[in-house]
Amino acid sequence: MSFERANIERMTGYGYGEQPDDAKVIKLNTNENPYPPSPAVARALAAVDIALLRRYPPATALGFRRLAAARFGLQPDQVVATNGGDEALRLALTTFVDPGAAFGMASPSYSLYPVLASIQDCRLVAVELGDGWLPPADLAARLNAEDVRLTCLVNPHAPSGALLDAQAIAALAESLSGVLLVDEAYVDFVDPGLAHDLTRLVHRFDNLLLLRSLSKGYSLAGVRFGFLLGSAGLIEPIRDKTRDSYNVSVLAQAAAEAAFADRKHAEASWAAVRRERQRLRERLLAAGFDTPASEANFLLAAPPTDAPPAPAIYAALKRRGILVRHFDAPRLAGRLRITVGTPEENDSLLGALGEILRPGSERC
Amino acid sequence: MSFERANIERMTGYGYGEQPDDAKVIKLNTNENPYPPSPAVARALAAVDIALLRRYPPATALGFRRLAAARFGLQPDQVVATNGGDEALRLALTTFVDPGAAFGMASPSYSLYPVLASIQDCRLVAVELGDGWLPPADLAARLNAEDVRLTCLVNPHAPSGALLDAQAIAALAESLSGVLLVDEAYVDFVDPGLAHDLTRLVHRFDNLLLLRSLSKGYSLAGVRFGFLLGSAGLIEPIRDKTRDSYNVSVLAQAAAEAAFADRKHAEASWAAVRRERQRLRERLLAAGFDTPASEANFLLAAPPTDAPPAPAIYAALKRRGILVRHFDAPRLAGRLRITVGTPEENDSLLGALGEILRPGSERC
Repeated sequence: MSFERANIERMTGYGYGEQPDDAKVIKLNTNENPYPPSPAVARALAAVDIALLRRYPPATALGFRRLAAARFGLQPDQVVATNGGDEALRLALTTFVDPGAAFGMASPSYSLYPVLASIQDCRLVAVELGDGWLPPADLAARLNAEDVRLTCLVNPHAPSGALLDAQAIAALAESLSGVLLVDEAYVDFVDPGLAHDLTRLVHRFDNLLLLRSLSKGYSLAGVRFGFLLGSAGLIEPIRDKTRDSYNVSVLAQAAAEAAFADRKHAEASWAAVRRERQRLRERLLAAGFDTPASEANFLLAAPPTDAPPAPAIYAALKRRGILVRHFDAPRLAGRLRITVGTPEENDSLLGALGEILRPGSERC
Repeated sequence: MSFERANIERMTGYGYGEQPDDAKVIKLNTNENPYPPSPAVARALAAVDIALLRRYPPATALGFRRLAAARFGLQPDQVVATNGGDEALRLALTTFVDPGAAFGMASPSYSLYPVLASIQDCRLVAVELGDGWLPPADLAARLNAEDVRLTCLVNPHAPSGALLDAQAIAALAESLSGVLLVDEAYVDFVDPGLAHDLTRLVHRFDNLLLLRSLSKGYSLAGVRFGFLLGSAGLIEPIRDKTRDSYNVSVLAQAAAEAAFADRKHAEASWAAVRRERQRLRERLLAAGFDTPASEANFLLAAPPTDAPPAPAIYAALKRRGILVRHFDAPRLAGRLRITVGTPEENDSLLGALGEILRPGSERC
């Protein structure tokens, strides 16, 4: 007999990207930063008093929250720290969406969102994105018509890298009757020339949450540290009620504070990723791939019509020790999501693609 | 306007024990192990390749799960690793208890259980414990009558330290129509002479989950690492569906594997805590405190009738830089829960209690 709730029994869990043990594999499949975290992280971890690991961590990560609040011109009670960005997403559903109520997203986007909706047993309202992977003009109206309590939008968009500007986000927050969570997992890679900054909107909208993560921008995916910015009215129930009491370890707090404080180091990695993003895109375009401009650390690439189909290219790359991501989903099945790697990794990818696409070759 | 769900707006969050910044405070309030973790933890953390923190952790902590499975004579698919024991408790509710359905517990016990029930918006069925803080003989019948889907029992019991033996747990698992989660957060401190071992029951009952934590027994409260043992049918939906995909960091996995593998080091701390538990209890009994025998790393002590009431003693100890726990709850308001500390810490406590209880003294 099964003891699972019916909604859990029905659902399928999140399908994460492959994490091979083989260190030689070129991993361009899970949007990790190709550069290491700040050397300050190693120093901070070495300075942790191991004997004191016997004690519980600071329960609300106040040290980090003060740092983040200061950087973004907010108060610490407008910040809550989480065990990775995924926990922040789950907590937003737990806090704001009753089972049976509606959860909103744009489609396609982060494949975890529908999984979280299934776990919370809420109704998924997925609004199809239009051309350029941008939301339709009536997005807010359609979500309000379905009485959506929480909408998650990843911005820059995944898996395309398209960016909605602050004006568009403000218009959405203004119009939506529920909470708008903007998942900024990739925001650090946005071209600084765009002066993109949503943090100022936190002061204007009491229904706006911004999700940040140290996984990509600060090269700490292995550490699990994310945070939400928002009005105290949205943050407090998460911090004081729905969050596990000690959700972020002493080690994660130490690593996160050190990495976040060394913004210069992280910025250098963002700039390097942007340079390679442009070069990789130009090379993919030259090879006939349909590859829209991206403000994230990945590119969505559709192979030319005379090339093998995307799943075959995915498999051929994998045989060569290069992992990219293929989603067997509407509008994505014919494309590959390629994380921007180091120049050497990108060269290996381009070389392999050249082989796979060469006429008369084994093809894949 | 509030965006919180009604059940979240109504509820009060978990009230955790004070975590003072002042390192001089004698902390006997949150059941932390008074001894440091294994030196192998420091070595394991120093060996983590900081550059590779940019990568996601092994998603299901397979390395640790193999260690735990081997130690307990189980398979890795009978183990799921969690971000502290609290996450395991939450995941059990998420997976097995529909909102509106019933969640069972004994009362009094771990004050997080009702909080988790409120978050999941399920019906709390709290069955009053009898004499000696032991469940009534008709516990299972009463829980079944309320159609309880999941029952959490902390064993050794908190805050008393009373232990239910394997036979009693087996009888409960046999009788209950829902899942029985035995929260073994303190099991490492049980007298080895009792040969207490519930892990063998996992083979017999497909509705039994055992919760273990490295927080107390392995001195890693700051690291956040717990795990569940159970039948694959109970473990798999947690591991593959309801758990956050990367819930345990690279650092936590490294620390947990090292600490768990060095059982000898941990055992020495358990033996030291047991010796001090006995000495502290004898001294408290001699001072007139009603203090039942405990198999955990804490004692529940009711002051003698001619002494100041428990809250006054709590406050007087706090003024002297000694923190113990007082719960303003039925049957507990007249008692103090005192974590067993080092011999020096316990001596300080006993000295302070002597002052506070001395006739004609300031009293408190």
